[in-house]
Amino acid sequence: MTELFYLPPVLGLVGLLFAFIIYLLIKRIPVTNEAIANIADQIHLGAMVFMHREYKMLFMFALVLGVALYLSLGANTALAFTVGAVCSALAGYIGMFTATKANVRTTQAAHDQGAASALSVAFMGGSIMGLCVASMGLLGLGMLYWLFGGDPATAHVIHGFGMGASSVALFSRVGGGIFTKSADVGADLVGKIEAGIPEDDPRNPGVIADNVGDNVGDVAGMGSDIFESYCGAMIATIAIASTMVLGDLGSRESLMFLPLALASTGLLCSVLGILLVKAMSASKPDVALRAGTIGAAVLFVVAAYFVVQQVGISYQVWCSVVTGAVGGIIIGLVTEYYTAAAPIRKIAKSGETGPATVMITGLSVGMQSVVIPVLTLSAIIFISTSLSGLYGVGIAAVGMLATVGITMAIDAYGPVADNAGGIAEMGGLGKETREITDSLDELGNTTAAIGKGFAIGAAALAALAIIAAFVETMTHHYPGFTLHLGNPEVLVGMFIGGILPFLIASITMTAVGDAAFEMIHEIRRQFREIKGLMEGEAKPDTARCVDIATTAALKKMILPGVLAVAVPPLVGFGIGPHALGGMLGGALLGCVLLALMMANAGGAWDNAKKYVEKGNHGGKGSPVHAAAVVGDTVGDPFKDTSGPAMNILINVMAIVSLVIAPLL
Amino acid sequence: MTELFYLPPVLGLVGLLFAFIIYLLIKRIPVTNEAIANIADQIHLGAMVFMHREYKMLFMFALVLGVALYLSLGANTALAFTVGAVCSALAGYIGMFTATKANVRTTQAAHDQGAASALSVAFMGGSIMGLCVASMGLLGLGMLYWLFGGDPATAHVIHGFGMGASSVALFSRVGGGIFTKSADVGADLVGKIEAGIPEDDPRNPGVIADNVGDNVGDVAGMGSDIFESYCGAMIATIAIASTMVLGDLGSRESLMFLPLALASTGLLCSVLGILLVKAMSASKPDVALRAGTIGAAVLFVVAAYFVVQQVGISYQVWCSVVTGAVGGIIIGLVTEYYTAAAPIRKIAKSGETGPATVMITGLSVGMQSVVIPVLTLSAIIFISTSLSGLYGVGIAAVGMLATVGITMAIDAYGPVADNAGGIAEMGGLGKETREITDSLDELGNTTAAIGKGFAIGAAALAALAIIAAFVETMTHHYPGFTLHLGNPEVLVGMFIGGILPFLIASITMTAVGDAAFEMIHEIRRQFREIKGLMEGEAKPDTARCVDIATTAALKKMILPGVLAVAVPPLVGFGIGPHALGGMLGGALLGCVLLALMMANAGGAWDNAKKYVEKGNHGGKGSPVHAAAVVGDTVGDPFKDTSGPAMNILINVMAIVSLVIAPLL
Repeated sequence: MTELFYLPPVLGLVGLLFAFIIYLLIKRIPVTNEAIANIADQIHLGAMVFMHREYKMLFMFALVLGVALYLSLGANTALAFTVGAVCSALAGYIGMFTATKANVRTTQAAHDQGAASALSVAFMGGSIMGLCVASMGLLGLGMLYWLFGGDPATAHVIHGFGMGASSVALFSRVGGGIFTKSADVGADLVGKIEAGIPEDDPRNPGVIADNVGDNVGDVAGMGSDIFESYCGAMIATIAIASTMVLGDLGSRESLMFLPLALASTGLLCSVLGILLVKAMSASKPDVALRAGTIGAAVLFVVAAYFVVQQVGISYQVWCSVVTGAVGGIIIGLVTEYYTAAAPIRKIAKSGETGPATVMITGLSVGMQSVVIPVLTLSAIIFISTSLSGLYGVGIAAVGMLATVGITMAIDAYGPVADNAGGIAEMGGLGKETREITDSLDELGNTTAAIGKGFAIGAAALAALAIIAAFVETMTHHYPGFTLHLGNPEVLVGMFIGGILPFLIASITMTAVGDAAFEMIHEIRRQFREIKGLMEGEAKPDTARCVDIATTAALKKMILPGVLAVAVPPLVGFGIGPHALGGMLGGALLGCVLLALMMANAGGAWDNAKKYVEKGNHGGKGSPVHAAAVVGDTVGDPFKDTSGPAMNILINVMAIVSLVIAPLL
Repeated sequence: MTELFYLPPVLGLVGLLFAFIIYLLIKRIPVTNEAIANIADQIHLGAMVFMHREYKMLFMFALVLGVALYLSLGANTALAFTVGAVCSALAGYIGMFTATKANVRTTQAAHDQGAASALSVAFMGGSIMGLCVASMGLLGLGMLYWLFGGDPATAHVIHGFGMGASSVALFSRVGGGIFTKSADVGADLVGKIEAGIPEDDPRNPGVIADNVGDNVGDVAGMGSDIFESYCGAMIATIAIASTMVLGDLGSRESLMFLPLALASTGLLCSVLGILLVKAMSASKPDVALRAGTIGAAVLFVVAAYFVVQQVGISYQVWCSVVTGAVGGIIIGLVTEYYTAAAPIRKIAKSGETGPATVMITGLSVGMQSVVIPVLTLSAIIFISTSLSGLYGVGIAAVGMLATVGITMAIDAYGPVADNAGGIAEMGGLGKETREITDSLDELGNTTAAIGKGFAIGAAALAALAIIAAFVETMTHHYPGFTLHLGNPEVLVGMFIGGILPFLIASITMTAVGDAAFEMIHEIRRQFREIKGLMEGEAKPDTARCVDIATTAALKKMILPGVLAVAVPPLVGFGIGPHALGGMLGGALLGCVLLALMMANAGGAWDNAKKYVEKGNHGGKGSPVHAAAVVGDTVGDPFKDTSGPAMNILINVMAIVSLVIAPLL
């Protein structure tokens, strides 16, 4: 087997090369319109400033954690931690850098060459993010595996990689989420409602910050979120394989290497899927995107069969992989249903009796929407473990995430298209261009919804795999270690774990509210004090708004970040490992339920508002529209800040627990 | 010990006698004003019609369940089930019957004799409910214990009592909750907002239904909820004691009898507390009520020490009792904080930027409010089990609920005072009377909030005790039975359990929305079609509105009711007992978190609206007020329908599981 260890990192490099080629293709498109070039530069600059300041803070945080790991678990774990943090940060940075290049070129393409070309550019922009996530994961994790992972005795070192990735994801996702929504809510509330100017109007001082937010939140934040799940699933599976009691599934060597082998296969399938979308760019956009994703998944399932056979592993493990891959698609489709179709029409109709009924209906849709995804997760757990034990959960998670290259690409396509629309509006590119970008944006909303459902399912399964690895590790050290719910320590842990998602959701929602409040204040001030702004004769101070959102986001992300990292050792050392295990169980349950509820309610409110804006129930400007806007505003932090923070929260806590397990 | 078995039922009879004397005292007060007598009759009649129709449905449901129990578990369990159902139904019926007599007499007293007298009448009205709950519980359960419970071999029979009580509570609470909020939302939306007439205006066709709702929801519903927790805690403790491995805590006989002995003591303390409140009716109302509750609790803790000593049980068990009693008070006080003080001012202030920020702030307050109560529960579990094992959880729950006679009295006082205010307004009794009833009502809101927090804590602890009894029973039958979270079956069960609270919350919220929609439709029709209604020359058809709320409530309570009863056997027989145990754990966690979140967010929105109405942030009629009204409307089903349904849901599922445990 060892002779294959070089393959994952090499494939990672190939993937990066492929991403670089796509980048060159995008760069080649000239931006001839100076107005939009200038706007795009402002967005690019704002996003980069945020990233630099965020990474500076991250560096300090990682330094403290790294030193702590070095002192408690040795140099190798600290090294793995550093590699994980750097890989995650790089993936986010490259992905966002290129997304802010692709947005304006999408606008240009829509203007010059029409819809097909614009779709192609936007999708290429997104696919760089997708490829970076998959490639950096394979490269970093593959190299560490080569160095340490092949040997069960040193395999635990690579847990540090997961912790590094999770730490970056935590700040990226929470900080990005607070940034994007404070800017969005602030710009919309003053611009659209108070000043009565359209969305993305260049006179609005907050509009650049709003567009920057799409990039730092939905591209970089989402990327690091998926990166963490992707690597977490592999690390957990390796960890389980390194400590499990071997049955007749295969050799420990093969079982440990399988996650990397499958992820490598998945990367190749993703590349083929991306090429398929590119080849189909002349057909209807949604058909092309769907063909690429489903095509890559089908290809992966088939290829995985041969990989599993090749490394001499039981056919049952392949079935577990399939449950994960199929389950991921089901969860995505259910999310699509709840953020489209009948539920959003019901919410829109409830707007006829005012904003209160919009809220009640939306919350009830959100709550109902957890049922099928969680049952799907239960089915995955049940089937995969009956086939391959706890190893099955891990490998199912790997199966779900293996084609992350293309699922993430389609996800990141959304904000690129959204930005392209904003740039077209701000640059005054005319109705025709705007119509093309609008249609791309609408599709982006659907793919983003699917992506969000998928991200939650993947995060949950990855976290569960990490928790399983934690339990395996504890059992390995202390035979007889069980998390019996009748044990009061486990029960108390479970209750504490259940509190955390509610607490973090509360903190992040309040953070958005507070930051939006500052933003509203500033935008109002500019409209009041800058003479000629409303007449279009003076320019707004957009940098000031970007700065406010940046400062607020960075300040407000510290508390949830520290909580997520500090609570597991506090509970583990303070009460005991049983309580820590119970806490992970309770937190997993709470996080999955809240994440699904918040994401789907938020998405449903957003689309209900869009449905009204299309002329239903009175259309724009009607009382029903005003009611739907209230729903959308509440849904913003739900779906883009607090909901996504749940994914990270549970994964960070799980990986921190796994890392400290040997010390308990 | 057996020579004391007659005491609990005898004390139950004494309590009922005491309640009857209070009833005679209330009845003695003449209602001289014909207008208010007439209004009160309408409310009384509406409430009775609802109860009769509800109990008819309940009878059918109980018949089916009773036959099923008879066939599967024998005649004795079916008998216990019947006794439990009858006791619970009777407690609710008597309590509500007298509450609808006390309301109008409170109005009369406020008009004729002033505040002190009005407080006294309202509190007497509530205390009948409190005494009925405690007395019926002791009488019914005490008699069954006398017959079967003393012998560990037949003790399981009395689980049937809990199931009977829970079945009634399920329908009472869910049906009552849907009734009260559909009437409230409907009457307010058309009356206050569309027609622009004050709350409780006699021209509003929905206003009688609204007042009926306070009785069927907040008196009968709340009463059966507490009754169920009260009996559930005792039954679970008896069950644990009958199967546990004995340590040095005491003899099995004493440990089994202790819950009834403590509840008897608690009833006596409650009676003394009620007398104390009565004696202090000349002092400030909140001081009198607080003195009664705290006084009864302190007295109980002291008396419990001697009881525990008397029956020869370890001092550690008494400490467990104290953790429960103290924990209940802490949870109540935290609830009071979150529905008053800083949080509601923050919500009110956020109304300055519209209803969306009111929603975000309220939800975030609700989410944050779960932290301390759940930590308190964790502390109770941790301390009580370290002192007395799993038995400690049960006896802590008994300790929390022992003085239910007075806590429930103070809780039921709220709707009586609320109704008194409504009757004063409808009867046109003038500003002075209305001011007195308003101040009583305001205090009632605070006591109701504390009562709600207390009810959730008690329900959670009772459910936990029942779950512990379930685990004990399973372990008794199958040594080695554990609910290890690493067991996929337990995990899948936990996920399914986590779904249920979200699903039931979604169903009940939708039910309120749909029923309110019908109500709005009917009230609008009457305003449109009944000539002279707005001018006060014609009378509204209030009976029609009561009928709509009744029909809707009865129809919509079936689905959640059937789900709660059917899911445990489905999971238990379909997947297995491990999955059932995991399900109970997941459902407990989800129910507690959602119940606290919804109750506190709802209470906070309600009080934030009242805070604005007192003239803050622009006062009544300002945009901030409109925003706060939106929050209050969303909060209505949160705090009075879906939130309370959580308490019942988990208790019903736990007791059903305990009952079917021998069959698994």
